[in-house]
Amino acid sequence: MNYLYEDRLFPAEEKTREIARTLYDSIKDLPIISPHGHTDPSWYAENINFRNPAELFIIPDHYLIRMLCSQGYSHAEMGVKTLDGTPYEKNPRRIWNIFAKNYHLFFGTSTRMWLDYIFSEIFEIEQELDENTANSSYDIIDEKLKTGKFRIRNLYKRFRIEAISTTDEVNSTLEEHRKIRDEWDGRVIPCFRPDSVTDPLHESFVSEVNRLCGGAPTYSNYLNALQERRLFFKEMGAVSTDHGCLEAYTVEASCKRMQDLLDKALNKTIDKDEAREFQGHMLIEMARMSVEDGLVMQIHPGVYRNHSSLIFKSYGRDKGVDIPVETEYVKALRPLLERYGHEKNLKIILFTLDDTRYTRELAPLAGYYPVLKLGPAWWFNDSPEGMRRFREAVTETAGFYNTVGFNDDTRAFLSIPARHDMARRIDASFLARLVAEHRLSMNQAGRLAKDLAYNIPKESYNL
Amino acid sequence: MNYLYEDRLFPAEEKTREIARTLYDSIKDLPIISPHGHTDPSWYAENINFRNPAELFIIPDHYLIRMLCSQGYSHAEMGVKTLDGTPYEKNPRRIWNIFAKNYHLFFGTSTRMWLDYIFSEIFEIEQELDENTANSSYDIIDEKLKTGKFRIRNLYKRFRIEAISTTDEVNSTLEEHRKIRDEWDGRVIPCFRPDSVTDPLHESFVSEVNRLCGGAPTYSNYLNALQERRLFFKEMGAVSTDHGCLEAYTVEASCKRMQDLLDKALNKTIDKDEAREFQGHMLIEMARMSVEDGLVMQIHPGVYRNHSSLIFKSYGRDKGVDIPVETEYVKALRPLLERYGHEKNLKIILFTLDDTRYTRELAPLAGYYPVLKLGPAWWFNDSPEGMRRFREAVTETAGFYNTVGFNDDTRAFLSIPARHDMARRIDASFLARLVAEHRLSMNQAGRLAKDLAYNIPKESYNL
Amino acid sequence: MNYLYEDRLFPAEEKTREIARTLYDSIKDLPIISPHGHTDPSWYAENINFRNPAELFIIPDHYLIRMLCSQGYSHAEMGVKTLDGTPYEKNPRRIWNIFAKNYHLFFGTSTRMWLDYIFSEIFEIEQELDENTANSSYDIIDEKLKTGKFRIRNLYKRFRIEAISTTDEVNSTLEEHRKIRDEWDGRVIPCFRPDSVTDPLHESFVSEVNRLCGGAPTYSNYLNALQERRLFFKEMGAVSTDHGCLEAYTVEASCKRMQDLLDKALNKTIDKDEAREFQGHMLIEMARMSVEDGLVMQIHPGVYRNHSSLIFKSYGRDKGVDIPVETEYVKALRPLLERYGHEKNLKIILFTLDDTRYTRELAPLAGYYPVLKLGPAWWFNDSPEGMRRFREAVTETAGFYNTVGFNDDTRAFLSIPARHDMARRIDASFLARLVAEHRLSMNQAGRLAKDLAYNIPKESYNL
Repeated sequence: MNYLYEDRLFPAEEKTREIARTLYDSIKDLPIISPHGHTDPSWYAENINFRNPAELFIIPDHYLIRMLCSQGYSHAEMGVKTLDGTPYEKNPRRIWNIFAKNYHLFFGTSTRMWLDYIFSEIFEIEQELDENTANSSYDIIDEKLKTGKFRIRNLYKRFRIEAISTTDEVNSTLEEHRKIRDEWDGRVIPCFRPDSVTDPLHESFVSEVNRLCGGAPTYSNYLNALQERRLFFKEMGAVSTDHGCLEAYTVEASCKRMQDLLDKALNKTIDKDEAREFQGHMLIEMARMSVEDGLVMQIHPGVYRNHSSLIFKSYGRDKGVDIPVETEYVKALRPLLERYGHEKNLKIILFTLDDTRYTRELAPLAGYYPVLKLGPAWWFNDSPEGMRRFREAVTETAGFYNTVGFNDDTRAFLSIPARHDMARRIDASFLARLVAEHRLSMNQAGRLAKDLAYNIPKESYNL
Repeated sequence: MNYLYEDRLFPAEEKTREIARTLYDSIKDLPIISPHGHTDPSWYAENINFRNPAELFIIPDHYLIRMLCSQGYSHAEMGVKTLDGTPYEKNPRRIWNIFAKNYHLFFGTSTRMWLDYIFSEIFEIEQELDENTANSSYDIIDEKLKTGKFRIRNLYKRFRIEAISTTDEVNSTLEEHRKIRDEWDGRVIPCFRPDSVTDPLHESFVSEVNRLCGGAPTYSNYLNALQERRLFFKEMGAVSTDHGCLEAYTVEASCKRMQDLLDKALNKTIDKDEAREFQGHMLIEMARMSVEDGLVMQIHPGVYRNHSSLIFKSYGRDKGVDIPVETEYVKALRPLLERYGHEKNLKIILFTLDDTRYTRELAPLAGYYPVLKLGPAWWFNDSPEGMRRFREAVTETAGFYNTVGFNDDTRAFLSIPARHDMARRIDASFLARLVAEHRLSMNQAGRLAKDLAYNIPKESYNL
Repeated sequence: MNYLYEDRLFPAEEKTREIARTLYDSIKDLPIISPHGHTDPSWYAENINFRNPAELFIIPDHYLIRMLCSQGYSHAEMGVKTLDGTPYEKNPRRIWNIFAKNYHLFFGTSTRMWLDYIFSEIFEIEQELDENTANSSYDIIDEKLKTGKFRIRNLYKRFRIEAISTTDEVNSTLEEHRKIRDEWDGRVIPCFRPDSVTDPLHESFVSEVNRLCGGAPTYSNYLNALQERRLFFKEMGAVSTDHGCLEAYTVEASCKRMQDLLDKALNKTIDKDEAREFQGHMLIEMARMSVEDGLVMQIHPGVYRNHSSLIFKSYGRDKGVDIPVETEYVKALRPLLERYGHEKNLKIILFTLDDTRYTRELAPLAGYYPVLKLGPAWWFNDSPEGMRRFREAVTETAGFYNTVGFNDDTRAFLSIPARHDMARRIDASFLARLVAEHRLSMNQAGRLAKDLAYNIPKESYNL
């Protein structure tokens, strides 16, 4: 018995629902393309089993921790390791029980829908999670996790994943990727993420730049080293780069100016505006290198990271206190687009957490510039309403073919099929509304459903 | 005969409508909690009858006056008293007739839905208001208003109000509240509103600060006096404070700096930026005091008050010419949250008129910080579409339990049941959609409907 | 046989759809009022036949060119004339074939819905356009275009146009308008567009100001000349002026200051801020003149024109690279509204491409100021979702009677009935939802449908 409804997430109106169901049925079994995510390559290299339910679902998941914090629990109570040795909860069952008791906080959220999918579809648990079922659910999950069926390479096949990208630091040796490739036929590829060497305010900037440049960090060595690293990533299977920055700001700067800024950054005398200029110009340099090596460029701006310094000091990064901010694109990207906006060999995928930019800025930009594509609704917007708003806001100006399909963007391996399933249901529902309102024919919608679920992500990322 | 439809505001789709109706039926008779509003405490103290239809419905209602102005009527024609003695309309029936003739301007607005509810449900008028029914409606209302059944304490019972908060100036004696408490078992409580002494640009700042501090306004006396006033409000039943400001801006400042700014403010030599700093720091001080005395802190930013200086000079404040502006929260609130964001004994309820911040800023903030909750869709957004947008925009990130239920926020006592009824219908409809799309079960939705209508507001405001 | 569905664009839910259909049926044959557009007056003066399908539909249409560019085609390949003599495609059938092959890019866009209407309703083509039908469609269109039935004056009658406004440069002789008026009973009127003489950064500012002032451009001559030109336009039938600017910024400035700024502008020594001040004050002067001559003032701000300098240099203006930017209204318009916000003889119609301002700024402004009205969803928002968002965002605060009905805003004459048809269907659908949710009665909705489609545009533009 499964408590998930077959028709979940489809519109209630009967004709539209039938269309949505038909479209969904035609795509639900397509392989998963996962071109942007944060799973750990060592998992695949070592073909791990995940540990217990708390370590699998709760402790590493900032979506989930943040909601429990909002109601007064501390990170330590939820098992998050403290940086200064302060005690934190180590009993996984106790953590699981707090979570189960508070599962109603997640009513109406994506987190709950994903977890319900995992509990029901993957672990075949028959009762919804709450205070009363906490212990039995824990036991079922814990037991199954230990089985061969739940080793990650088996799950990869079971989930019908065709390709999955991790995200890897610029200086990574990519040893795990090599091991995966040598040992196994699953396609796990790296993605080149140079933030630690392009953002002068990053806490490891100096050490990472030195590591990158082998101790002689002139600007020209630095650029050469970046280019070499990119080629190495590409040899190891990478198809893309990823750039997380506060803003989408880009700016021209001379080599001399960049050398000065780099020196200041390495001496830790660079100020905020100068750091912004350095990082803003490096986006242009990264685009230039993409023209040469063909790696797809992803830009993920607009998050105020570590908003609470208390939590950053106590627990570190990625602990649920990253808050989106306004993110301008039209003026910010112009210098980059003036230089490379019409390149044949360049693809730039833009993401946003600022949903007010979809209609006004992003759709018109992607609806003109050949190099630009729009990434899917991201992070806080990776949700039924968020995805619906995205399609409603951009389609009429950018169409479907200037978007890139779905990214699961997750660290939580088990949630991958749940997330793709949600995205397919929402796209099917959106298309179904257009059909029901005679804005698309059924044939057109069928073609679009398959393109959005499979063909477009594959092509967009050159997979 | 009642011209209101039983199913008004429910979605048209039949299954969803049935679910909405079931949910609504389970909450429609719950008592009203009204934790934020602007009714006059003297009404309850004196157990008044309201006067005529024009004085009750039109002259004091800036929602309604502004729409008539937008089509060319002047405030004076609508009976609003001029400050300089210029003649203004004094015949209530004439005012009523202008309004009735223009009632079509309100098609599709909350104002019209609230008034239709009042006319039909409370006054039992059988015909819709228009030019032709203006006089008969006037007569029916005018006659009923004079009856004992329409004295305010009887209406309070009839409306099933369990608690209602007024909003009171920092220096108020709260005499009416004392009289109400001594004489009557209705629960009418004050709310502490210190804007006139925390905003140095407020027109009465100097006199009110002097009154507050008894003539010796050092910064330390000033803080002590505020603390005492808060305690007095609390003794008189207050559970909350309210802060109306142009921005949500907060900033740290030393006592010495604040003393300087206070001196400048009292000498009227303070400039705009300094006034902003003073007010921005006082929000932090108010939070500190809330940690101590437990009063819930409400922040209502983002209105450009008195946009037309002509109307401000001729008629004064609150005359329908207050216009919302952009309101940033993530950077603005950080200093306050750095200090008090994780306090156990603090609740801060954030409001906004800037609906572009719901998804991007407010839901992520309230979805992490334990002290933060989100107030309901406010003022211009207190409407079917406004409330729907609010739920669609925040639920997936903040859930339901980081929101606080409905506030009627009104001066118009008779509209209170109409407003709560609308909010309950819209929440029922939103939940019904989630049920129809299998994003919630019926049981979960039933629990949420009751929590949103009654339990959450009661708990959020410690009532 | 027609492949358009009778019920296209109506909501799927059966009761709502029936209401929408009834409302639409009551307005679908009303005459077209087209008070703002960009068709060429010479077309009517000379009663032209349009040339071939490529020159009619593709080459001049920036909506369409931009989408093809976004997928890698160049302007030159699509037949757009280069400014420097570089070769460009001149074979219309070849251009048409590229377009037909890529027609799937327009799935879900307004462009496709308008074109499908034109192909099916106006040219009576029975098969949808694609690669395979490209040549036969070309032939059918090409042949019909040559017939008398397709001369523009006949199309004007066939489309039931009652009045249409062109947009005309400040120094235009309006010779074509005179010819039209002398020869024909169609109502084609000019609109006064002074941007080239009010924006000091406009590329033709100096020459146009000199032309305007007959060589003696003092500020007072300049104002007088503008006033005279407006009167001439009015004599020639104009009812409105139109102001395209980057911002809605207005500002007071003395005559002396304006003389200085004008001198600098003519000497090309004016800087950006000064140019902004000049243009910002000229909006106030234009409002003053409108108070005198009664021309309705239209303000169209918020577009970053010619975002790609490469395309601007190669092909010129209006080539699909205009991108909307954030556009503030509350502070920007205040100086103008302080002066003329309560004038009886003034109407200002505000447009926006910044859909985040509807609820927060534009509806409250238009919902109070008697001079302000809201123009329809514009350009990128002239679409089913765009129009729906507009109504949902503004109606509850501004009502229907502070909006002005539909503008087609087009250069593409043949698309006029398609665009009005879409707007009528969307308004009917919006009203139908309000009826189905018992927020309006059927009678009220019927009255509103007719007012929005015909009476309101006629009155708003004094037609």
